[in-house]
Amino acid sequence: MSVIEPPLSFNPAGIELDRRFGLTRQLYLALRQRVLDARLVSGTRLPASRDLAAALGISRNSVVRAYDQLYAEGFIETRVGDGTYVAQLPQAAMPAKKLSTKLSTALSTGLPTGLSTGLSTNCPDSSVKVIHSGALDRLQIHHLARPPSGPPRAFRVGVPAFDLFPFEVWAKLNAAFWRRPDLQHLCYGDPAGDMRLRGLIAAYLRSSRGLQCTAEQIVITSGAQQAISLCAQLLVEPGDHVAIENPGYQAAAHAFAVAGGRLHGVAVDSEGIDCAALNALEHCRLAYVTPSHQYPLGVVMSLARRLELLAWAERTDGWVIEDDYDGEYRYSGAPLAPLAALDRSGRVLYVGTFGKVAFPALRLGYLVLPPGLVEPFSRRRAIDMRHSEVSTQAVMAEFMAAGHFQRHIRRMRRAALSRLAALQSGWPGPLPGVSGLPTVVAGLHLSVRVDSLARERQLLMQAEAVGVEITGLSRHWLPDSSTPPDQRAGLVLGFAAVPVAQIAQALERLRQAWGG
Amino acid sequence: MSVIEPPLSFNPAGIELDRRFGLTRQLYLALRQRVLDARLVSGTRLPASRDLAAALGISRNSVVRAYDQLYAEGFIETRVGDGTYVAQLPQAAMPAKKLSTKLSTALSTGLPTGLSTGLSTNCPDSSVKVIHSGALDRLQIHHLARPPSGPPRAFRVGVPAFDLFPFEVWAKLNAAFWRRPDLQHLCYGDPAGDMRLRGLIAAYLRSSRGLQCTAEQIVITSGAQQAISLCAQLLVEPGDHVAIENPGYQAAAHAFAVAGGRLHGVAVDSEGIDCAALNALEHCRLAYVTPSHQYPLGVVMSLARRLELLAWAERTDGWVIEDDYDGEYRYSGAPLAPLAALDRSGRVLYVGTFGKVAFPALRLGYLVLPPGLVEPFSRRRAIDMRHSEVSTQAVMAEFMAAGHFQRHIRRMRRAALSRLAALQSGWPGPLPGVSGLPTVVAGLHLSVRVDSLARERQLLMQAEAVGVEITGLSRHWLPDSSTPPDQRAGLVLGFAAVPVAQIAQALERLRQAWGG
Repeated sequence: MSVIEPPLSFNPAGIELDRRFGLTRQLYLALRQRVLDARLVSGTRLPASRDLAAALGISRNSVVRAYDQLYAEGFIETRVGDGTYVAQLPQAAMPAKKLSTKLSTALSTGLPTGLSTGLSTNCPDSSVKVIHSGALDRLQIHHLARPPSGPPRAFRVGVPAFDLFPFEVWAKLNAAFWRRPDLQHLCYGDPAGDMRLRGLIAAYLRSSRGLQCTAEQIVITSGAQQAISLCAQLLVEPGDHVAIENPGYQAAAHAFAVAGGRLHGVAVDSEGIDCAALNALEHCRLAYVTPSHQYPLGVVMSLARRLELLAWAERTDGWVIEDDYDGEYRYSGAPLAPLAALDRSGRVLYVGTFGKVAFPALRLGYLVLPPGLVEPFSRRRAIDMRHSEVSTQAVMAEFMAAGHFQRHIRRMRRAALSRLAALQSGWPGPLPGVSGLPTVVAGLHLSVRVDSLARERQLLMQAEAVGVEITGLSRHWLPDSSTPPDQRAGLVLGFAAVPVAQIAQALERLRQAWGG
Repeated sequence: MSVIEPPLSFNPAGIELDRRFGLTRQLYLALRQRVLDARLVSGTRLPASRDLAAALGISRNSVVRAYDQLYAEGFIETRVGDGTYVAQLPQAAMPAKKLSTKLSTALSTGLPTGLSTGLSTNCPDSSVKVIHSGALDRLQIHHLARPPSGPPRAFRVGVPAFDLFPFEVWAKLNAAFWRRPDLQHLCYGDPAGDMRLRGLIAAYLRSSRGLQCTAEQIVITSGAQQAISLCAQLLVEPGDHVAIENPGYQAAAHAFAVAGGRLHGVAVDSEGIDCAALNALEHCRLAYVTPSHQYPLGVVMSLARRLELLAWAERTDGWVIEDDYDGEYRYSGAPLAPLAALDRSGRVLYVGTFGKVAFPALRLGYLVLPPGLVEPFSRRRAIDMRHSEVSTQAVMAEFMAAGHFQRHIRRMRRAALSRLAALQSGWPGPLPGVSGLPTVVAGLHLSVRVDSLARERQLLMQAEAVGVEITGLSRHWLPDSSTPPDQRAGLVLGFAAVPVAQIAQALERLRQAWGG
């Protein structure tokens, strides 16, 4: 680069677009390639969309969409009141060169099959030669780190002690439902879900969370992921700004990105999401948070911070999505009131799931909505899929009504505590460059900091070599994070997925692998 | 109006927008109100979006979005190479004044709760005072005619003879699954679905439909509706043109509208969708069709028309979504090959469902995709909801593998035929203004034409008065249809939902009500 004074200039010459294919996608790929090649370096200012459109002879809309995509993926950033710049790309966020080549190939075959995600679906060679531009843009789905499958192992995250689930009871309730089904329930049902189950969930939340809500406010979903995705589809317009915790739950980030949201990662400290940073974001009116037990750090949001967050929502006329994914697991002290219980102006959408009490594959979750949102959410759900499968809802309702659910929660809490104790007592610490285990007051996982990405990688590889599954904290950051890469390093350990004996064995193997 | 020469001019003076709220929505409401008031009459040319944006001092994007909404709802139409005009509104498509007032109210309360859909969800008064503009646009979900619920009655459409489903077998298979679950299947699964079920579906389609496909091409969905909705979300960009049969399946139309598609209703004749009309649509590269048994007319698409449709897809570089919702029910002659079996260039997405063989509330369907689309569809599905509930898939796989499925299809086909015969023998015809019953070669419903909307309404009301459920053909047209209102009239009767005795009783009551 001949000029080094900021802002660096950007020369669109050399970008050649083929009008037979999607222009947005070609422009996106061309710009992305230049960033990856370092032909466009961090801090370079990009032309206004209008100017670039004129220079290339294409519609402004195509440029805006290409910029949006690059932005969502962290390749470019906007500076308020200034313009658009090539972002400072952290090492970890730089896709391998191979990936980018595959993306280019995808353009000619018409499909971004190169965006490998580790999904196990077998994808034979495409017989689709060309896909039209609209489809191309839509098909460019963000990389979603799929949760690991296969038999549960220590220390898988997001999996409860479901080996303790009373399957015999569940089998009996299922058989009873199917032997004498009420035929009228086998036609099309209410998109918001089984009314009996909705009533039981409302009663449960009132007593266990102090969340005053009615059955009519509950919308049943296919797990927490669909609840989050529904919020994204209904509340986010393309280009809307969305605040998420950083580090945070990437599957939620993907749902917002698919809806066209521009993601802003907001730091998390010992009290939860940094509300000062949130307040500084302009034009942002939607925040996704995990107050009961921050994912992945494990922090419990303080009451002061909860109130600040609600004040932010009122001030900005915004929404807060409260994901209470493992709220059943609280081990000491009185649980803090959920945001939805503190909310006085109907701005909190509460996400709950049965996946962390029963098992993930059940795909049964729910939203507690401000009353006015129930109707539009139900309508959208009806268009998306009519409603959820009928027997799972009916059987869960019976499971709750008969008292099995409350008993099972107590059993699961005890199991999680004893499995946590096994992890704590057998942990091969202190380890060089690794912080000590934190005090755990809630949830099914904990996280420890590691002093560099290199060390994190080393520890994970050594663990994997002895068959122990540990998740890197670094993969929970948004690509455009300002946090220096080494400060993103850490280990996330789920402690509930397997019985105590397996935990002890895994720790023994870790001790040898890590030399602890 | 002082000037009557076309095009009539439009004066934006008097449109006042409040910048504190969503501009798109306000503009949409203002224009819509003017159309409903006949202040803007049919044939009036609307200004180009750029000009109207300048006149109102708002962004062009807001105007484009408002126009899109009005267009999708049939209030305005575009003339190729010319401009945008206020549409000729058929009487039936004109919402009552009350509805429009409710919509205006919705703006101040922040929610379009006035768009009553007959959904049974109870919606208490909104505590949400103001919703931001992005949300408003998204929440404006189209009216979805929800399928009737309650106990099945003669002549409900879309419901098979599910009183004959072997519930005892299903109960046993469910209990067996839950008693000895494989724990590794209770964590997170493949977003494309249970591989065993996918293999069995592929084998079934190969033998029953001559559709050469592999397990890897199958993606399991929550019913046909989710399959259609997924196609809409992945293949339709806002503003894309989408062709659907007219009359047609409105729930599919809603899915495309939610994805931002501009709907074009294409006429259906005795051979299926009118391909000449389809070929005349410019810029349209996606068509949704029901070739095995057109919904709602019941026409089977001819082979010539199938080939024409595939040629259209090749020529336009487009996609065809083939909804084979009741393809199991073929009563005479060899079934024609599905489009997906004739397709040589990977342009057909085939939608199938278990809802019409088992029962609708099962919510189990599938897509057969061109191989290159499987990966992007799976990824999107993972973000939307991870995957479908695990036991329904596993139990259906066992049900198929053990031969129950094939036996049940034969039983269901026989039942549908005898129920059809009961309808034919007891039908109170000939009736004034009503065509004779057609010859039925496929499916679970038939339709007859009626010579006016008034007569249709009269027949439906008289039927409802004696507890007989008949659907008006008129409600299956898109709002912006050019077909004169009276030519949309007819009756749609599902003949499979209830046993022969109930059908005979219903026909006896109809005879009295209709004086046949």
